[in-house]
Amino acid sequence: MGTTDTPVTAALLVIGDEILSGRTKDRNIGYIAEYLTAIGIDLSEVRVVPDIEAEIVAAVNALRARYTYVFTTGGIGPTHDDITADSVAKAFGVPIDVDPRARAMLLERIPEADLNEARLRMARIPQGAELVANKVSKAPGFWIGNVIVMAGVPTIMQAMLDEVAPKLATGRRMLSETVQANAKEGDIGGPLAAIAAAHPETSIGSYPFIAEDGRPNTNLVVRARDAEKLAAALADVQAMVTAIAQRGSR
Amino acid sequence: MGTTDTPVTAALLVIGDEILSGRTKDRNIGYIAEYLTAIGIDLSEVRVVPDIEAEIVAAVNALRARYTYVFTTGGIGPTHDDITADSVAKAFGVPIDVDPRARAMLLERIPEADLNEARLRMARIPQGAELVANKVSKAPGFWIGNVIVMAGVPTIMQAMLDEVAPKLATGRRMLSETVQANAKEGDIGGPLAAIAAAHPETSIGSYPFIAEDGRPNTNLVVRARDAEKLAAALADVQAMVTAIAQRGSR
Repeated sequence: MGTTDTPVTAALLVIGDEILSGRTKDRNIGYIAEYLTAIGIDLSEVRVVPDIEAEIVAAVNALRARYTYVFTTGGIGPTHDDITADSVAKAFGVPIDVDPRARAMLLERIPEADLNEARLRMARIPQGAELVANKVSKAPGFWIGNVIVMAGVPTIMQAMLDEVAPKLATGRRMLSETVQANAKEGDIGGPLAAIAAAHPETSIGSYPFIAEDGRPNTNLVVRARDAEKLAAALADVQAMVTAIAQRGSR
Repeated sequence: MGTTDTPVTAALLVIGDEILSGRTKDRNIGYIAEYLTAIGIDLSEVRVVPDIEAEIVAAVNALRARYTYVFTTGGIGPTHDDITADSVAKAFGVPIDVDPRARAMLLERIPEADLNEARLRMARIPQGAELVANKVSKAPGFWIGNVIVMAGVPTIMQAMLDEVAPKLATGRRMLSETVQANAKEGDIGGPLAAIAAAHPETSIGSYPFIAEDGRPNTNLVVRARDAEKLAAALADVQAMVTAIAQRGSR
């Protein structure tokens, strides 16, 4: 779709009881966040909801009204608890049935004799949706309106994201530079707030961490879409860090 | 608060640009999910929102109206991007200022000469909130209404959760048993759906995985609050798995 000057936003909807119970630790949020940032899409919200149709429908409708894209993960397998496709069809108010294109994709990997009713669930696609192919398991995701439905298994989700990414509209990438402050967060909070206020078109984040030598340290992350504005704020942050280091060595 | 017969629910609100950009990988969702499940609280929804006051206020108000508890992580440090406390005060419509009790906690660790304006941000507590002590860094979280505000740094968040857990109302624990199906998910989807329909007060999840020998396998997780109902559904699932194994070995 090419790059636009207006920011392109996205929400991620993670669907699955197993994430909310803690049985399965999600590995998709961080991956998708990094992936979208790298291609110029701002991940603006994430929700995790259980395998309950009304919850999925409500979340899909709230998020698709608000963001350029909504990505979902989970709930498109062959068992009774895989209700994402039906829930998304309901959210859009369209019928859903076994899609011949999806069935054909399944047959690339599954012998026809094994294509039972359970496996055919994976070919249930809301009317009007485009399929999202997947090289790993063949069972497709789909794209309807601005909602992109993907698997929950990380390797399969990643294959689907690769498939769909070239077709997405993207905005100017958020550029980012990190400066290690060599100081405690509490010692730089004052001057950093002044720098942040002086550079309103950048976003400056402060992330404390414990260094390998056991001493508290802080990463300062300056972000902006405009390279010049980023550079200007970055210069101020670096000057502040240098000033603190000189004060410390006196 | 003791155990009640009605389910106790919770939402988790993760606050931070760094999670949405993918720069920081969240390690709190899975921990909190497992922790709450273990003490008899159902984590029912998770949201991740950026460091934007209006977004935090809207999410806090949506979630606190709906669930027994709302836990938040992130955004209570000493820098300008730490806006959680002010946002929660706004969500509740109460004033916020430096709290003498919180200031005293900070002084247990920070020399008074170092207690600058930035560090004092960590003592800003909405009026009417109870403090949540933390043994790791001393800077407190707080609890207002049904909202519990915790740090984003995992070790500090964990200390706060330990502090607050004994004071939470809890429901009957969700019991859980896992059966390894030794079968592909698509081969058990049909009978499993029938078992799930026959045991409506249990929740049966199906989670495919690739075993160490490279063969596809499936974990079936049966959950219920009632031990007898769990046992009845579990017996049906085990019988199904045994039947499939016998069929496979013929």
